Amino acid sequence: MAEAERFGYHNRILRVNLTSGEIREEHPGEEFYRAYLGGRNLIAHTLLREVPADADPLGPDNRLIFAAGIITGAPVAGAGRNSVGARSPLTGGCGDAEAGGFWGAELKRAGFDAVIVEGASDKPVYLYIRDGQAEIRSAEHLWGLPTAEAQEAIRRELGDHGVRVAQIGPAGERQVRLACIANDLTHFYGRTGMGAVMGAKRLRAIAVRGTKPVPLANPDGVQALARWLAANDEKLNAGFRDTGTAGGVQYLNASGGLPTRNFRQGHFEHAIRIAGETMRDEILVNRGSCWACIVRCKRVVGGVHGSRVLHPVYGGPEYESVAALGSCCGVGDLAAVALANERCAALGLDTIGTGMAIAFAMECYENGVLTRADTDGLDLRFGNAEAMLAMVEAIGERRGLGHILAEGTAQAAKLIGRGAERFVMTVKGQEIPMHEPRFKHGLGIGYAVSPTGADHMHDDGLVKAGRSFRERFGPLGILSPMPVNDLSERKVRAFYYVSTWNHLYNSLGLCQFMPYSPNQVVDLARDITGWNVSLWELMKASERGQQMARLFNLRCGFGADDDCLPRRFYEAFADGPLAGVALKPDELERALALYYGMMGWDDAGHPTAARLAELGLDWAQGGVDG
Amino acid sequence: MAEAERFGYHNRILRVNLTSGEIREEHPGEEFYRAYLGGRNLIAHTLLREVPADADPLGPDNRLIFAAGIITGAPVAGAGRNSVGARSPLTGGCGDAEAGGFWGAELKRAGFDAVIVEGASDKPVYLYIRDGQAEIRSAEHLWGLPTAEAQEAIRRELGDHGVRVAQIGPAGERQVRLACIANDLTHFYGRTGMGAVMGAKRLRAIAVRGTKPVPLANPDGVQALARWLAANDEKLNAGFRDTGTAGGVQYLNASGGLPTRNFRQGHFEHAIRIAGETMRDEILVNRGSCWACIVRCKRVVGGVHGSRVLHPVYGGPEYESVAALGSCCGVGDLAAVALANERCAALGLDTIGTGMAIAFAMECYENGVLTRADTDGLDLRFGNAEAMLAMVEAIGERRGLGHILAEGTAQAAKLIGRGAERFVMTVKGQEIPMHEPRFKHGLGIGYAVSPTGADHMHDDGLVKAGRSFRERFGPLGILSPMPVNDLSERKVRAFYYVSTWNHLYNSLGLCQFMPYSPNQVVDLARDITGWNVSLWELMKASERGQQMARLFNLRCGFGADDDCLPRRFYEAFADGPLAGVALKPDELERALALYYGMMGWDDAGHPTAARLAELGLDWAQGGVDG
Repeated sequence: MAEAERFGYHNRILRVNLTSGEIREEHPGEEFYRAYLGGRNLIAHTLLREVPADADPLGPDNRLIFAAGIITGAPVAGAGRNSVGARSPLTGGCGDAEAGGFWGAELKRAGFDAVIVEGASDKPVYLYIRDGQAEIRSAEHLWGLPTAEAQEAIRRELGDHGVRVAQIGPAGERQVRLACIANDLTHFYGRTGMGAVMGAKRLRAIAVRGTKPVPLANPDGVQALARWLAANDEKLNAGFRDTGTAGGVQYLNASGGLPTRNFRQGHFEHAIRIAGETMRDEILVNRGSCWACIVRCKRVVGGVHGSRVLHPVYGGPEYESVAALGSCCGVGDLAAVALANERCAALGLDTIGTGMAIAFAMECYENGVLTRADTDGLDLRFGNAEAMLAMVEAIGERRGLGHILAEGTAQAAKLIGRGAERFVMTVKGQEIPMHEPRFKHGLGIGYAVSPTGADHMHDDGLVKAGRSFRERFGPLGILSPMPVNDLSERKVRAFYYVSTWNHLYNSLGLCQFMPYSPNQVVDLARDITGWNVSLWELMKASERGQQMARLFNLRCGFGADDDCLPRRFYEAFADGPLAGVALKPDELERALALYYGMMGWDDAGHPTAARLAELGLDWAQGGVDG
Repeated sequence: MAEAERFGYHNRILRVNLTSGEIREEHPGEEFYRAYLGGRNLIAHTLLREVPADADPLGPDNRLIFAAGIITGAPVAGAGRNSVGARSPLTGGCGDAEAGGFWGAELKRAGFDAVIVEGASDKPVYLYIRDGQAEIRSAEHLWGLPTAEAQEAIRRELGDHGVRVAQIGPAGERQVRLACIANDLTHFYGRTGMGAVMGAKRLRAIAVRGTKPVPLANPDGVQALARWLAANDEKLNAGFRDTGTAGGVQYLNASGGLPTRNFRQGHFEHAIRIAGETMRDEILVNRGSCWACIVRCKRVVGGVHGSRVLHPVYGGPEYESVAALGSCCGVGDLAAVALANERCAALGLDTIGTGMAIAFAMECYENGVLTRADTDGLDLRFGNAEAMLAMVEAIGERRGLGHILAEGTAQAAKLIGRGAERFVMTVKGQEIPMHEPRFKHGLGIGYAVSPTGADHMHDDGLVKAGRSFRERFGPLGILSPMPVNDLSERKVRAFYYVSTWNHLYNSLGLCQFMPYSPNQVVDLARDITGWNVSLWELMKASERGQQMARLFNLRCGFGADDDCLPRRFYEAFADGPLAGVALKPDELERALALYYGMMGWDDAGHPTAARLAELGLDWAQGGVDG
């Protein structure tokens, strides 16, 4: 069969073996792209095919996968997203994180859909990709540098200030399990410890330069969507542009759903101090963007905290960072939070995991589980901004208590002992992001079943829609909004549909914040690729990825017992707007059983042979098939 | 909430109680239409909601439902289809049959989406619907008339030769379980004995006249599809127009898949005599059509058989009729077959069921199970055209052996005894249509699991696509054609997808012969209704209907054991192109188990609570909810 003309993907995956130094290309073919799309799905596929049960996440057998999707790099708002994945050193299972920015689009413009890194280098290296070529270069001079300095050094060395750099910082070099990967210093593959995997491979950075537009099957259609968004920009995006992702702080706080003091509370008395409006009015110096996007939800902040000047080069804090380093640590000082966010960016630390690890330590400290003897003299109580800032540095440098917390909260509690485990807020070893399941009950399912552990990409999605509910979710057959405090059949159904829908974004390389309807996304996928795809086909592709991630987690030893929440979520809030409210274990149990059934999982949480066959995954039943 | 403007449906269902004479309207609302669409799905919903386990199919508790879909009546080729359903007196379970023609479109143009008939009249009546009004009228003067005379009498009486008449014939009056309902004399709701239900209610006809076009949300979009089909008419439809549905006879015969002599053979030595090409060259006098259709696949035949003149008013035989009354009875005489087809139309008999009942009797006769003493002196051997014709009359009039066969083959075999059951070719009590599962293995699944028993609307659909396979089935994620003799995972998956897709047509009111791709159908549904639906949503609606039909069958006493095939399909052909070929019981068993899993059915064939919840059918778990 003659090969089809390619649009939206290149049929070129770069495979780099850092042990041998070998670089080669793979061309999996159109059927592969249509079945797996890219991004998170391509990662799950690679893990399932290639990473055996005994592979050490920080060893050479692990794969580190940078994957764009078929939409990544198209000239339309939202097309800047891409994924990084590996077996996670934080959870031991499926590791995956998404980021926006320009790096993914640049990779596509350089002629590649993904980069799969295997093996490990003896010495620090970085990878340089330019218009279809790739080479491994020494990074010994970069090792130990903050991310901004390293990026500058790479650009200078390559003589190209337009090169896009995805890199780890000193935290990743030290294999801190909360380490992220940054791109352009302001976009972060934050979760599941991907920075530690990159550090273990001694790969400091991947610098990319591409100059060729991604070919489109129907550029007019793509432009039409871009024009639609531009024409509706004021109505759809103005609020988000105005206050960014932190614009929801006050609403969440008023609802009782703002994670506060390690989730002990859902209401923070200083919420206004860390709200998006305050950021806008006090420290915002610019608004940043991602590839081809007109929304400009990203923050760029300036100013000072004490004697320390904030560097706008690191952008500014997202909602997740504001809540994790702010309310969750009891810190109501925006400049301190912004500085902590900057330090995480410079060190290459996940702000959610880092903030939550510090919040955990603070709760340990307030309960006498940790003392000044453990904290190097720090008064590690909730609300102590300086202590929070000091702990960020300690974790990034693996110093003192920070060396313990660098293993992640769950492991740290085991190392600390003394009953510290009761303050651990993780699922499958990953720290809970800044969304409260006692407020949005559907999140309880999402946190429990997400293959990456607690993950804000598994939101229940049903209250955050900017456009009318019917317009947004109608094509999924969900026509009416539903209350947040509901775990009935219809909510489980809605969660199943919407989480599949959300997962699809991460496989297409599309930003979930775009106000596109499912039908618009399908049309976009068609206009980019020329495939006569449908929402049916794309949703099946999405579920294919979810099932592959599940299968990989089962291989890694996870089972139904691990689809559980920290006990705290079953304990009622003592105060705030949701005083007295808790998740009910039997309700969540029932919802999970329904969800298992909807996913075609048996009681043990294993996908049935029939469901795998239905999705064309019968090959995946037998285990590794590499 | 303000009611949405309505396009494609009227939100008006006519409910007629023939016991009380009461006529009223129901307005179930937009969410209902969007969840259930109409046609076959509306029927399954009504049966599940209203017909209890102990309802006699021929008693007043049964419902007889005439249901159009949201596409029925739109000005585009293929929009002439609609459904009739009831608890079947042939199978005892879900009864349902589709037809084209003009009647369904006329019902929509008269302002109604469906008619639900309950109770039973003491005396023969007919229903007259005209532009939003309905009345019950006496049909005593019509009782006993052939269908053409009755239609003429109704039109004369109403003074309107444009009135469209759906009616039973004398066979339906006599509650022959093989009785059909005809519309315009040439379109037949053939299967599952719907004519007997109508006869038991003493409802001879429903005459409809409507003058208002169905309102469309986006007429330009609908017209664009019509223009697309017109522009591609020669390429897509010419062959079908040329030889009609019987155009496949020679291909099937050459493949060994032409049902012959009660499925004893798959190859008929006189196939050329009953082929579409022969019909075209020898007896075709015109080509008929359905509402808004340009394809003209319908046949109108003339000529003579012996001393009998064929009446073009009854149209001409479809492929199913040609094979059932022809090759399956060993009859290679086209004029005789055409005459038998005409007599079925005049009497109101299903040609498939009738032909198969006669073929069964012929095999009994050839094996000494029936003798001339049973057949009123007829030499009922295969190939005796006059005996076949005589038996059509006998069944329609319930005379002699015909009175026994009028109960359907399965019941007739019980009445005959003497080992006759080994010649019964039915599933769930309904006669096998004219497609051979030893040729197309996927049909084996379809026949076994169809809620109406063996049903040619549950084809495997994978070899009959006129357009390229990828273009046609790509949106379902089925990208490559597959061999017909395959029951592997991928075939079961394809069957699951395609049967759900085919079922959708019957709920939309769209003809399966149209060469539209799934995405074109979704666009059509959107342009007609204004809903932002997707293929995902429509496929879920389709599966909703299949699950409701399954639940109704379970209520009626069917279980997994009834999802089985006649033993003959496991016996190899003795001769012909497929000599030595048979279905393998273990392969089909495995395929059915996989299909159960894909449908979310447990081993006993019951839909799981999770699957019902996923489809928004949690209400249906508890049984009748009327």
